[in-house]
Amino acid sequence: MLAQWVIEKKRDGEVLENNEIQSFLDGFSKGEIPDYQMAALAMAICLKGMNFKETTALTQAMLESGEILDFGECEKGKVDKHSTGGIGDKTSLALAPLVASCGLAVPMISGRGLGITGGTLDKLEAIPGFRTDLGEQEVRDVVARCGCVISGATANLAPADKKLYALRDVTGTVPSVALITASILSKKLSADLDALVLDVKWGSGAFMKTEAEAKELAEVLRQTSQNLGTPATALLTAMNQPLGRAAGNALEIVEVIEVLKGEGPADLVELILALGEGMLAHGKVAEGQRAIDLLKQKLESGKALERFQSMVDAQGGDPQVVENPQLLPNAPIVHAIPAQSTGYLEKVDAETIGRACVALGAGRKVAADSINPAVGMSAIRKIGEKVEQGEPLALIHANDADAVNVVLPWMSEAFRTSESPVESPPLISGVIEGKMKA
Amino acid sequence: MLAQWVIEKKRDGEVLENNEIQSFLDGFSKGEIPDYQMAALAMAICLKGMNFKETTALTQAMLESGEILDFGECEKGKVDKHSTGGIGDKTSLALAPLVASCGLAVPMISGRGLGITGGTLDKLEAIPGFRTDLGEQEVRDVVARCGCVISGATANLAPADKKLYALRDVTGTVPSVALITASILSKKLSADLDALVLDVKWGSGAFMKTEAEAKELAEVLRQTSQNLGTPATALLTAMNQPLGRAAGNALEIVEVIEVLKGEGPADLVELILALGEGMLAHGKVAEGQRAIDLLKQKLESGKALERFQSMVDAQGGDPQVVENPQLLPNAPIVHAIPAQSTGYLEKVDAETIGRACVALGAGRKVAADSINPAVGMSAIRKIGEKVEQGEPLALIHANDADAVNVVLPWMSEAFRTSESPVESPPLISGVIEGKMKA
Repeated sequence: MLAQWVIEKKRDGEVLENNEIQSFLDGFSKGEIPDYQMAALAMAICLKGMNFKETTALTQAMLESGEILDFGECEKGKVDKHSTGGIGDKTSLALAPLVASCGLAVPMISGRGLGITGGTLDKLEAIPGFRTDLGEQEVRDVVARCGCVISGATANLAPADKKLYALRDVTGTVPSVALITASILSKKLSADLDALVLDVKWGSGAFMKTEAEAKELAEVLRQTSQNLGTPATALLTAMNQPLGRAAGNALEIVEVIEVLKGEGPADLVELILALGEGMLAHGKVAEGQRAIDLLKQKLESGKALERFQSMVDAQGGDPQVVENPQLLPNAPIVHAIPAQSTGYLEKVDAETIGRACVALGAGRKVAADSINPAVGMSAIRKIGEKVEQGEPLALIHANDADAVNVVLPWMSEAFRTSESPVESPPLISGVIEGKMKA
Repeated sequence: MLAQWVIEKKRDGEVLENNEIQSFLDGFSKGEIPDYQMAALAMAICLKGMNFKETTALTQAMLESGEILDFGECEKGKVDKHSTGGIGDKTSLALAPLVASCGLAVPMISGRGLGITGGTLDKLEAIPGFRTDLGEQEVRDVVARCGCVISGATANLAPADKKLYALRDVTGTVPSVALITASILSKKLSADLDALVLDVKWGSGAFMKTEAEAKELAEVLRQTSQNLGTPATALLTAMNQPLGRAAGNALEIVEVIEVLKGEGPADLVELILALGEGMLAHGKVAEGQRAIDLLKQKLESGKALERFQSMVDAQGGDPQVVENPQLLPNAPIVHAIPAQSTGYLEKVDAETIGRACVALGAGRKVAADSINPAVGMSAIRKIGEKVEQGEPLALIHANDADAVNVVLPWMSEAFRTSESPVESPPLISGVIEGKMKA
């Protein structure tokens, strides 16, 4: 089999055989198939698509390019959650210790941010000393000690994904449901999970702009995970306004601590409880209202916060940040954006706020950019809330006055008020259920 | 402008600006844009297409990646012909000296064969000593001396095409009208032509299987050439049966010499006269029947043959082959294929005969293969001809008996007879006229 035959087949819209996908990815992984052939195949996949069977074979090939984490001695159910990313999405940081405090193991392999969506690892690194580059034994040790861990993929986990992801970034081949699915699941399933809960976001601040696109991705993710033996549930959630009230790395850690103290913003808590319910149900701890009640109890009792503090400590971070968030990086300038008129917020645009955060230095334009953990936005008002003229719509945390001036025009674009009352839009717009593991 | 933005634009089906195409090709040519980005763009072009304006910009960028041959002292009109290739297509070899004998200059930059279609340079190299790797000064000298030359592109002519062609071959990105057009014209127009005649073939032995596909390519080729200031005419010609009666390098040289002696097979002579008429018309020598009469006269008088002999001599080949074709390489085994029954030939399949010739060693399966100039087929009978049972349908010229046995089953597949008379199919199915240069 010549590599170009496989490319030609996909170019012509035909269905690839499992062994064709397997050998191509294997050859690419080993460096026998050059980047230019992989780039041509990736573009053909972008434009001609892959069916469930092909997507499963691709995911499996990428998963098998590396090792599977061995949690041999762990007797707990292992569950994880993945989000396709959005502005202010810090759910993972609260969810991992919360679900761990309910008795499950959460070995979370996470990534960094690129473009307007932040990255879980970047947020955690705002905590002085926090390490996200744990080795495999360290990952196991932290799970054994705290019930959860959040770290980056080691070199041995899905190496084909690392290589392909870098190539897709520079060849215009990111937006493919099959390639996105294989990338997400090959990383996640390498942690030997018993189940996975997916948060597939849609809206201005998400990768998928429409609910229909998000639903398609959610179904492929769920089915592919299921085909590979890991039951999954996907939530479709709106990302037209930021999640919670903070966006920016250290500012989001502060908000996570609030959530874990039972004081978080309503939308963020709602999502954490819904995702947590899915994880507890898959993990056979509790279902429905019983699961929600258990999660709430762990938040109110401080048990979830204890787990968080213990995980921060186990990963080298300063556990004092929980009691004293001033230990996190602070921006020298905090500038309030006043409401131009009294009324009800009808638009709080996630994409514009996300771009403003990147401009402040909270995110990366290209993968090589460095980030500033202190900057971003806090006290962001939400759609449906009433604001008085002159009252702050958000606080800009910036490194200097120039940066504030750069983002101010965007901020007046991001918010819009209406004279008549506006309903708060629903956050969770759909649930795609997976079957339980037999 | 980042290279991936251009790729993304084409992936999404948008029209690229001239400067985007120009910078991308320029960057690729200089090695600043890596092969994997070019491969992704080429696949997007294959699947989303390019309009006339984009195709023109792409061709110009590839043309301008190298030098244009300078024929400053040449006062004759410079015309050339390009064929998209087929089985037994040796028209260039007779046409160049024939048109030169009518007073025009024919600086023909040609290529090698790949797959079932033969290459003009391979055929000429069957002549002992013939050189196809002339330098630019040699090209000019041979044109000055003989009025024509047939040689390969030098390193300075359209280097971006050489690089892109090699990449397309291994990334499944050959079948794109825009990429084919840019490849053909960037090579051809680098010879500073005043006009170009195109032979776009369709049928089982051609790259384009249907007349509709050939017509689309012909129109894009003609319009793009015209846009770049070189008027062109395209003929659509059938390639369901081989052209002439010989296929294989030395065997085709023998047939060319027959044509130049006024003794060639009718279909081959018909095509040479039609293409020659187009070249003489564009070169303002003669049009229509007057041009045909002039071409016939040059064949009958031996003037065209003299030009051929002089070109062979000027390019280092043995001019004695004209009088003594036995000086060409001979295959040790000549095996006749007898007709199974008496009747009229209704199928003589070009593709099957082409594959058999490649199997005998006359062509290349992959670009690195070497070829045997002596092998192939001769005395191939044509559709519509009556054959008696046992009479030869063709002669196989092979290196050994094993090779004969390999191709024999294909030969019985290639020919089919009918009891009732069959009409000979038309060779030229359409003409797409270009406008004359002002």
